[in-house]
Amino acid sequence: MKLFIGNKAYSSWSMRGWLAVKQSGLAFEEATVPLFDADWDQRRQGDEFAAGGGKVPILWEDDCVVWDSLAIIEFLADKVGRDVFWPKDEQARAMARSMAAEMHSGFANLRRELPMNVRKQYPARQLSAETVQEIGRVLSTWAHARARFGGTGKFLFDRYSAADIMFAPVATRFVTYSVPLPGFAATYVEALYTHPHIRQWIEDAQNEDWTIEKYEQEVAA
Amino acid sequence: MKLFIGNKAYSSWSMRGWLAVKQSGLAFEEATVPLFDADWDQRRQGDEFAAGGGKVPILWEDDCVVWDSLAIIEFLADKVGRDVFWPKDEQARAMARSMAAEMHSGFANLRRELPMNVRKQYPARQLSAETVQEIGRVLSTWAHARARFGGTGKFLFDRYSAADIMFAPVATRFVTYSVPLPGFAATYVEALYTHPHIRQWIEDAQNEDWTIEKYEQEVAA
Repeated sequence: MKLFIGNKAYSSWSMRGWLAVKQSGLAFEEATVPLFDADWDQRRQGDEFAAGGGKVPILWEDDCVVWDSLAIIEFLADKVGRDVFWPKDEQARAMARSMAAEMHSGFANLRRELPMNVRKQYPARQLSAETVQEIGRVLSTWAHARARFGGTGKFLFDRYSAADIMFAPVATRFVTYSVPLPGFAATYVEALYTHPHIRQWIEDAQNEDWTIEKYEQEVAA
Repeated sequence: MKLFIGNKAYSSWSMRGWLAVKQSGLAFEEATVPLFDADWDQRRQGDEFAAGGGKVPILWEDDCVVWDSLAIIEFLADKVGRDVFWPKDEQARAMARSMAAEMHSGFANLRRELPMNVRKQYPARQLSAETVQEIGRVLSTWAHARARFGGTGKFLFDRYSAADIMFAPVATRFVTYSVPLPGFAATYVEALYTHPHIRQWIEDAQNEDWTIEKYEQEVAA
């Protein structure tokens, strides 16, 4: 399998796709395509990106193509077994899938106002009312999942699952922008940061040797 | 099971959730909650909406709750079998899941500029460049799916699948706003309109006895 991703420092959707492939345990090759650099517009016209409309992440296995992080998760779950990605218990799985889907289509303000940049850390700052509300919703679903299904584990649904994969980039934003968190959420974010896959992604991002102006500017705004 | 939905005339996400439950073949009760009427803000504070952050569709089965149409599809597929919702062939399923996920998180301009109203039909009108581009992308993925996996059937992946459920509300927008379509797409839209579940949804919408100003105004804009 070959996974095409954007910069590890900035591309939150790529992070989800990459964490999913890591979680599958299957062998894969990765190719990083720097977002918004001089060649980006030309590169995304390439054959390997056409099916996905020029976006990353996109996963190829021979003639089989999957784009979009949530589809990549389900594709891999079909391959290696649903239990590798989702809770076994039906009620827990229903909630995990709902939270993953809500993250997939929602939280537009949070994503725009706090773009991912895992190489940076800024002091806390004033956020728009919409973003504050979205952060509240994230924390409320985290609390709900932990209370009902957290068990003795450190993750949303006890064992590390696709729900954690979907929220991992949000956790990095909370750290990057020093968003004040209640204790349970800070503990959960710490658990994510100590997960070996997430730690590796962040380390790889530190070692990337490119910087894209657009992202660094947005962050400074 | 009990499914809470918005107005059948306007609520595209509800349509997807409802089509999914119909496709499962399981018995269910439906409750319509008129969107944006005088009581809406109060009603969405109710216990049955809390888990989903006040949004529809939301599906309950005893203590088990699922919100978001894509999560509802996967929840039901777990219950009644994946083949009821997704193509059997792995490559086809990978593409169907990718298209469903892309629809789930994308096409924001199309959705905003052409709000669903299955009770109305308007003459074709000038659309923004962004919406024209998104319509082009929809048609391109439809063409790709039909060409590769359409087989002898009338739907995107031969047999009716979750990909058709995800795109059904888009098809109604194309009809409502008289969007000019290439032949293959017009034929596909017609196939959707003759599917018994979709026909029933549209008939139910015609018979709803409420009209929400917000939606009728947006349409007239």
